[in-house]
Amino acid sequence: MNQTKTAAIIVIGDEILSGRTLDTNTQTIARMLGDKGIGVVQVRVIPDVIDTIVDTVNSVRPQVDYVFTTGGIGPTHDDKTAEAMAKAFGVALERNADAWARLVVHYAGVENINDGRAKMADIPQGATLINNPVSAAPGFRLGNVHVMAGVPKIMQAMMEGILPTLEGGAIVHSRSVLGEVAESILAKGLGAIEAAYAGISVGSYPKFTPNMKPSTTIVVRGTDGASVDAALENVAKLMREAGAEPAYL
Amino acid sequence: MNQTKTAAIIVIGDEILSGRTLDTNTQTIARMLGDKGIGVVQVRVIPDVIDTIVDTVNSVRPQVDYVFTTGGIGPTHDDKTAEAMAKAFGVALERNADAWARLVVHYAGVENINDGRAKMADIPQGATLINNPVSAAPGFRLGNVHVMAGVPKIMQAMMEGILPTLEGGAIVHSRSVLGEVAESILAKGLGAIEAAYAGISVGSYPKFTPNMKPSTTIVVRGTDGASVDAALENVAKLMREAGAEPAYL
Repeated sequence: MNQTKTAAIIVIGDEILSGRTLDTNTQTIARMLGDKGIGVVQVRVIPDVIDTIVDTVNSVRPQVDYVFTTGGIGPTHDDKTAEAMAKAFGVALERNADAWARLVVHYAGVENINDGRAKMADIPQGATLINNPVSAAPGFRLGNVHVMAGVPKIMQAMMEGILPTLEGGAIVHSRSVLGEVAESILAKGLGAIEAAYAGISVGSYPKFTPNMKPSTTIVVRGTDGASVDAALENVAKLMREAGAEPAYL
Repeated sequence: MNQTKTAAIIVIGDEILSGRTLDTNTQTIARMLGDKGIGVVQVRVIPDVIDTIVDTVNSVRPQVDYVFTTGGIGPTHDDKTAEAMAKAFGVALERNADAWARLVVHYAGVENINDGRAKMADIPQGATLINNPVSAAPGFRLGNVHVMAGVPKIMQAMMEGILPTLEGGAIVHSRSVLGEVAESILAKGLGAIEAAYAGISVGSYPKFTPNMKPSTTIVVRGTDGASVDAALENVAKLMREAGAEPAYL
């Protein structure tokens, strides 16, 4: 059986670290990749600092099948990702003719390309461009690293273009069931269910209902759909035994 | 002048990596720490795998003043953080008498403490407990590492208890201004403003208004409030020169 492929996400941006902006790109990317059998195994959030970007990319890229970065490829002085990627891969950052042509069309003429806009055509040598159907300025791929914009709308459009180029792996099936019961009541049975099915993971996620009654969502995941279904039925049975009617999510 | 202290966040949880759950804890922690002059400099999201937790904690904790982890301290088999922290620090995981007493009170008697609940009293030797006013089961601190629950309501309550124990640093002042202008128009001027003020960072964050007109938020940050204000005024002037009326956020 083929394996699930692995991916890492590197979120580049001071605004995430400061708490000013909530990062939603990680969830979007993880879901899109999951549907192709590519599992995100680590996420890093780092500042807009060239040496940090270089070190992080070079540390992460040998560990996974694919790397996806978001942020730092715009026109301003705080957009340092393209320069950092060139440094990480030991290649020159150069004016890319294809990227330049896209900007000229988007901005309706060379005369409208100021220095900031021109910067978005500076791409590491040897990179493949990633289409940006929203605002033209492309992302790029170098080796297994996909460099994307940080604006969620643009990032998502870029991912849609990237997905067909990725080799998928075994798809992880995920099914969930919710019960109004404390997870500590289920704990022993859940461990036994996970142990009984090879290749199945059973996750337990407690929360409180608005009236502060404990409830628990159990997520069963695995590449073999029949085993996932069987394990989920055992979880539902466990909930019923604890007096909670399971709700399939 | 004193320095801003540094922090790292380690989010432990398969549910974040799979995209099932959106991580909001990072933003909450970053904002709470920022108000004390403690800046988050890196975030890692990792799976519920003991060796990965051990390696990540031991790699990160010498790099920063404070580490905060979320997730994996509940009653079920997939809660592995306490065991991993004991391993990371080379100490035993042992039944903690204080934690046990809190659980007995919360669950109204020893007879209600099943194995899963008892597990939440297993704390690495030498750790200091972190109060959990929501559901009793405590977090803990080992060295500079603060181990908290993943449920946002519990995590936030734990952070409120932790904050007074932290030594704060120089507070970073942050002011923002929004203009209906493409950031590429402002790019050159922004770089010049950042260069003109020592210790000031100028971040540029584009987005699109609902009618797809470009707009840009500029965030000026620094520990010297007067410099932040002065730089912000220069940014507002730049926006006016570009024909956009600046809106202070």
